[in-house]
Amino acid sequence: MTLPAPSDRAYVPFVSVATMMELIHAVGLETMLVELTDAIEAEFRRWPAFDKTPRVAAHSPDGVIELMPTSDGIHYAFKYVNGHPKNTREGLQTVTAFGLLADVDTGYPMLLSEMTMLTALRTAATSAMAARHLAPQGARVMAMIGNGAQAEFQCLAFRAVCGIDTVRLWDIDRAATDKAMRNLAGSGLTLVPCASAEAAVEGAQIITTCTADKQAATILTDNMVGAGVHLNAIGGDCPGKTELHRDILLRSDIFVEYPPQTRVEGEIQQLPADHPVIELWQVITGAAPGRRDAAAVTLFDSVGFAVEDFAALRYIRAKLQETGLYDRLDLLADPDDPRDLYGMLQRARAPGRPVSAA
Amino acid sequence: MTLPAPSDRAYVPFVSVATMMELIHAVGLETMLVELTDAIEAEFRRWPAFDKTPRVAAHSPDGVIELMPTSDGIHYAFKYVNGHPKNTREGLQTVTAFGLLADVDTGYPMLLSEMTMLTALRTAATSAMAARHLAPQGARVMAMIGNGAQAEFQCLAFRAVCGIDTVRLWDIDRAATDKAMRNLAGSGLTLVPCASAEAAVEGAQIITTCTADKQAATILTDNMVGAGVHLNAIGGDCPGKTELHRDILLRSDIFVEYPPQTRVEGEIQQLPADHPVIELWQVITGAAPGRRDAAAVTLFDSVGFAVEDFAALRYIRAKLQETGLYDRLDLLADPDDPRDLYGMLQRARAPGRPVSAA
Repeated sequence: MTLPAPSDRAYVPFVSVATMMELIHAVGLETMLVELTDAIEAEFRRWPAFDKTPRVAAHSPDGVIELMPTSDGIHYAFKYVNGHPKNTREGLQTVTAFGLLADVDTGYPMLLSEMTMLTALRTAATSAMAARHLAPQGARVMAMIGNGAQAEFQCLAFRAVCGIDTVRLWDIDRAATDKAMRNLAGSGLTLVPCASAEAAVEGAQIITTCTADKQAATILTDNMVGAGVHLNAIGGDCPGKTELHRDILLRSDIFVEYPPQTRVEGEIQQLPADHPVIELWQVITGAAPGRRDAAAVTLFDSVGFAVEDFAALRYIRAKLQETGLYDRLDLLADPDDPRDLYGMLQRARAPGRPVSAA
Repeated sequence: MTLPAPSDRAYVPFVSVATMMELIHAVGLETMLVELTDAIEAEFRRWPAFDKTPRVAAHSPDGVIELMPTSDGIHYAFKYVNGHPKNTREGLQTVTAFGLLADVDTGYPMLLSEMTMLTALRTAATSAMAARHLAPQGARVMAMIGNGAQAEFQCLAFRAVCGIDTVRLWDIDRAATDKAMRNLAGSGLTLVPCASAEAAVEGAQIITTCTADKQAATILTDNMVGAGVHLNAIGGDCPGKTELHRDILLRSDIFVEYPPQTRVEGEIQQLPADHPVIELWQVITGAAPGRRDAAAVTLFDSVGFAVEDFAALRYIRAKLQETGLYDRLDLLADPDDPRDLYGMLQRARAPGRPVSAA
């Protein structure tokens, strides 16, 4: 069948996984991590401009599927993301994602993008953004607890953004640590594989936890966290899923993205609903204090928020305009007369084919 | 750059607008409307099985962008849809949409599809489904008020599903009526263009209203609606946007899809929150009465609900398996080792390109 080609308005720029990887290499991974950190921080700086809502989650026994929308009144973005820790047993990923950027004025999509890769980058960039406001001055050593799909991106973002030079790695599965060591060889980081979480945190000024079990775990106990440490807790991001012992929370200054979501999903689901937390955007604008003193324990209770994906999608769209690295997807019907969708359908019928409606 | 081809797990079946039109013609539009009506009814019949939530709307001065998720615990679906009545002035469509079907067990997408065309079909099929349970016996004449993009699909669905043989058309813009008349010529329907809404409803046993202004309008006044009529009100589907005079509602038996959403968006936003309504699924299962008697005025206060899109996406996926009419979209990263997303990115680097992370 010969169809008239859809018009420009019918096409949505599309970034596949292969194209995203090509784009990351074209920009350079560390450069992209740094630029994404700045892009996300720029959006946090204008936090009140966003229409915010906790993500819309569909929970099942083995995982969760979430939609994460937000808008600044000019652009609208949402991400589809799943979290299924048991997937890795079947050779599937724990987290896959894609996202959309749209024009609020018309409702028309402007970009559809894979976000499995992009979420890995924006999560690392968000952690680094928080740490550059909260970590103790001169921090050089990070403990990386949980060495799965997110680990290398975290390590590289902390190197590029915060000046970390040494990473102490531990995972319950030594093969994961070995994988991260291989991948980070040549990154410029000093890599120290550790035999336990206790060993990994020794001498670390920053402790990043990023484990995947969908349950309340105690990756860190209270005695493992010394004064002056910054905790970057990524894995507790789902109701019933936490990583830190409650006692750690009670002596930490706790920083969060969006309290209504973190209260349900983050480490602080272990605390009363009125336990004081500080919104990260207020630290960035200077409206709230960050680290009080060198001895304070700061905790970024990270669950991932829609504004970070919004920032990442806007960043990618700008890069597409520079690089031309995208495909065009025939996602939108574009009839000559917008009221004549049926006429468009009729005209798409192959000549000589009987009128199906007759 | 030569990349290894993504594996089957990385690909998501994709139905573009062109492919959807090809699929509709391959099946036959009226056949598809009938099959969609049955598919949607089958899901309404097992209504309690669905995880339901009012759609998540981002309102702006000129329109709305909505996400409509639902799940039956086996499959998960959501639709992205906008509504921007002013778009037609710029040659754009009021409504565009796309949707996704996913596997709850893994969170992996199973189908990404255009839904501008598909929403037009499922909306018509849902209207026809309601009418075959609610319209007076032997109804043959429908008034079609509002002759925009949805009009022809409504007329054809009511012909195929309910046995309507005559349509009385009216639109505030005569050009829209002319367009619908041209499109429906040869459909087997007797078409009667009318000079006013009052003229259009004369002798009609079913009145369908489908106008697009984003405001409280009075397309039908109380004196225009006689005893025994079935009202199929589609256009009132947004806070502040209604089509019927309140007095009509007060003497109608009102049937809705999902009360928490319809209370906010439908015609019944004009009524107190405790005004009695009947859930359509209960009529279909026999748990609630439909039409009480020949003189009753029945009103389907239709706003569109996620379960209808779920049904439509499942129907399309089944058709893809029969016809092979789809593309494959590289939407999901699929590393050999699911914990090694970074390794996948590294291996995608062109040989000889410097290590960007170093």
